Amino acid sequence: MSYAKPMLEAYPREFNVDADVLARCIDACYDCAQTCTACADACLGEESVGELARCIALDLDCADLCTATGAVLSRQVTAGEPWLWALIEACAEACASCAAECERHAGMHEHCRVCAEVCRTCEKRCREVQLLAAA
Amino acid sequence: MSYAKPMLEAYPREFNVDADVLARCIDACYDCAQTCTACADACLGEESVGELARCIALDLDCADLCTATGAVLSRQVTAGEPWLWALIEACAEACASCAAECERHAGMHEHCRVCAEVCRTCEKRCREVQLLAAA
Amino acid sequence: MSYAKPMLEAYPREFNVDADVLARCIDACYDCAQTCTACADACLGEESVGELARCIALDLDCADLCTATGAVLSRQVTAGEPWLWALIEACAEACASCAAECERHAGMHEHCRVCAEVCRTCEKRCREVQLLAAA
Amino acid sequence: MSYAKPMLEAYPREFNVDADVLARCIDACYDCAQTCTACADACLGEESVGELARCIALDLDCADLCTATGAVLSRQVTAGEPWLWALIEACAEACASCAAECERHAGMHEHCRVCAEVCRTCEKRCREVQLLAAA
Repeated sequence: MSYAKPMLEAYPREFNVDADVLARCIDACYDCAQTCTACADACLGEESVGELARCIALDLDCADLCTATGAVLSRQVTAGEPWLWALIEACAEACASCAAECERHAGMHEHCRVCAEVCRTCEKRCREVQLLAAA
Repeated sequence: MSYAKPMLEAYPREFNVDADVLARCIDACYDCAQTCTACADACLGEESVGELARCIALDLDCADLCTATGAVLSRQVTAGEPWLWALIEACAEACASCAAECERHAGMHEHCRVCAEVCRTCEKRCREVQLLAAA
Repeated sequence: MSYAKPMLEAYPREFNVDADVLARCIDACYDCAQTCTACADACLGEESVGELARCIALDLDCADLCTATGAVLSRQVTAGEPWLWALIEACAEACASCAAECERHAGMHEHCRVCAEVCRTCEKRCREVQLLAAA
Repeated sequence: MSYAKPMLEAYPREFNVDADVLARCIDACYDCAQTCTACADACLGEESVGELARCIALDLDCADLCTATGAVLSRQVTAGEPWLWALIEACAEACASCAAECERHAGMHEHCRVCAEVCRTCEKRCREVQLLAAA
């Protein structure tokens, strides 16, 4: 169980976002930050690390983006800030880019297979938050 | 479901730590980073924010410690580094300190009640990793 | 002296960005992350913390954005990623928003005056990197 | 010029630490976080990346520790927390470990030479803060 949802429900002010959609996106960002950090490290443990340099760098970028996005989305005091949408867009696209690279190695490296899956989920959760705004 | 455990199982080199204990601690660090970030923000949304300044600052410290510890523990290439134990000790104690402060407000603020619980769990998971090393 | 410039000059591959403009933006991101973190804490130390809740939350968001942007811009392996521009846009706008809020309190709180100045510099440095891409 | 010192001087409450020593340590932490992030990336750009896996992983750990330590030391509301010393000890030792590894490659890779120097400075600045406490 995650705590993003109960923390949103405990927020003391009024709150006009779908808490389920937001909580799922926050959870996906933290999952993705952890998985990308672990995937970069597992790539560094492979014999073929020379072929995985771009994969490692994308893992690190994606982890940084997801850490920042997960934290920012956890704050409701600033939920109306217009730059949030550029951040969510950057996060979704960094996840897509990292997923595409990991998918190339998914047949050989189980850590890339899992990481690609988690990145695709995070991309999708970011898109669902974007749809809320468009609604 | 979290991905820390499958990522540890996919690690390409030999690995002489109890993966269950380590994965639970990594998960607890990321959960605690998110919950403390949300609790700081919920405190900022309270009327009585003036009385919660210390709680907010401890939440922020604890979130920073847990983010760093969760990332560092996700890396197995450097798993034997001796300074890891000082980091885990700092993280466990920061969680204990944040929990103690949140517990003082738990009766009035549900976000502090949840946050204290998550901090206590993270403290315990760090202690379990310390016990592994002592064994 | 900062180390962003000598580190860019030591980068082992070809490198087709203006290193001065990029290094200044990286430096500004790390400066802004530190200053916003300190401003949030100084606000928590004020008697009037209740009036500064939004300022604190923007400081924290801006620190998270600048930390991520500074780290991502420090990586040249992924320098061609298209989502970088959304991240830089989000960072510039978060800096502008935090600066505008801090400027409201600059007459009363020296930490807000300094923080607004550092945020405005970081916003400008991000815009200079955007201009490179447009050139 | 850095802003850690003017921000400490603008802190609204009484403050019984040597602001010069503390500001220098905060600056060193942020410098080291940036330099280690850039060194990891430059290592990923080397032909011999396979021999630099441990160097990259230590760079990433050191960057995470320095980011957390720089942020935590920027907060004065929680300056008396006892776990701070374990964190500073972990940070100093992670810097020493990263420096030792980078020094092994300093003759071949300029980015490792610069990074080792910045890590040694950060280690020293952390030790100076520890001496303050012992005084």
